[in-house]
Amino acid sequence: MAIKLIGFPQSPNTLRVVLTLNELGLPFELEPVTDIKTIKTEDFLANKHPFGKVPVLCDDDFVIHESRAICRYLISKYQKDANIVLIPDDLNKASIVEQYISYEISYYDPPLSKILYQEVFNKRNGRPVDEAVVKQGLEEIEKVLDIYEKVLEGKDYLSGEYSFADHLHTVRAQGIYAATAYSDIFEKRPNVKRWITNLRNRDACKKTYA
Amino acid sequence: MAIKLIGFPQSPNTLRVVLTLNELGLPFELEPVTDIKTIKTEDFLANKHPFGKVPVLCDDDFVIHESRAICRYLISKYQKDANIVLIPDDLNKASIVEQYISYEISYYDPPLSKILYQEVFNKRNGRPVDEAVVKQGLEEIEKVLDIYEKVLEGKDYLSGEYSFADHLHTVRAQGIYAATAYSDIFEKRPNVKRWITNLRNRDACKKTYA
Ligand SMILES: N[C@@H](CCC(=O)N[C@@H](CS)C(=O)NCC(=O)O)C(=O)O
Ligand SMILES: N[C@@H](CCC(=O)N[C@@H](CS)C(=O)NCC(=O)O)C(=O)O
Repeated sequence: MAIKLIGFPQSPNTLRVVLTLNELGLPFELEPVTDIKTIKTEDFLANKHPFGKVPVLCDDDFVIHESRAICRYLISKYQKDANIVLIPDDLNKASIVEQYISYEISYYDPPLSKILYQEVFNKRNGRPVDEAVVKQGLEEIEKVLDIYEKVLEGKDYLSGEYSFADHLHTVRAQGIYAATAYSDIFEKRPNVKRWITNLRNRDACKKTYA
Repeated sequence: MAIKLIGFPQSPNTLRVVLTLNELGLPFELEPVTDIKTIKTEDFLANKHPFGKVPVLCDDDFVIHESRAICRYLISKYQKDANIVLIPDDLNKASIVEQYISYEISYYDPPLSKILYQEVFNKRNGRPVDEAVVKQGLEEIEKVLDIYEKVLEGKDYLSGEYSFADHLHTVRAQGIYAATAYSDIFEKRPNVKRWITNLRNRDACKKTYA
């Protein structure tokens, strides 16, 4: 078994997969993309990702792209040998995890990626930060986190036990803490704060961002 | 077993679940939401969906929300008794299906829902159609479907055989044909056209939109 991950080492989509690899304790080689042209070649489009995007994972001969699909692949294949359950076998439990996986992509990721696009991507590329977009993202995420605060009442994790759904929320939270002045959106809500702190204190998270 | 689906009968998120129920040949009762206030009560927020949204599915005592999570639940529980494979058992095959599931939510749904929000939701509610938003949605989906055209070369379905990934693409396509003048985005690309035609001709689709 040799796992190779092609990606931008700093990008949330790549970090999402690195986090899963670390959570599962899997050794891998990261092949960093240093020139965007290399992911737009005919060969890359035909054999790696037709949209010319990363991450792409190669597990020996098996090639798969799209970060969340890659994470699912790794979990399905390797969690049984790792000391962790990210997606439970029990149908009802797994379905509730899916429900919270849907929260992440439906409600949590869109406003946070709006903010981080402005605060990280635009700043890094010397472009102006559109404050109106940041403001809108903040308004949206505040409402969403008000609901998370209720969902997390009396619980350490969204479905009770740590799962892939919580796991998926880590990367954007790390981005907010590392690159913006807005970590208050998490800090001022006690249940959300406890949950995010748990996520950020996991060994896999520390290893990923070391 | 008694399956009850709470939803707006016309809404894409509800139709997505109805389509899955029909594909699996499952009898169910649709409880239509006629007044949005009923999904914002304390009881609904506490016991059905904390975001006050539908669809919500009740399978006897088991309650689950978020359309894509509901579909996955139904597939995991009932596809073995139905004459159809929406998510294959084989790990690598299932992972490629997941890859295309990610295409749907990452690249296909956002521009189409932008267009349909203007053309259906705004029109229905007597609000003006923002033509600039429609134009942007069209530009985005054209680029996406150019890539689908290549992915579908020599194939009837995204991963070769019909799967949950194709299935998920049906509802927005139906919306474009039924409510806009833009079905040309599918029709002018031979592989995409063949694929969409296959999807729209399925018995479950005809039943859902009868
Ligand atoms: N839905 C994809 C998104 C991947 C994505 O957008 N990757 C970015 C880097 S974060 C990329 O490759 N961008 C290059 C481009 O689009 O040209 C996933 O989850 O992996
Ligand atoms: N991510 C959810 C979205 C559900 C959703 O947005 N439902 C709409 C109807 S299409 C709704 O209930 N809207 C009421 C509201 O948001 O107040 C899903 O996939 O089920």
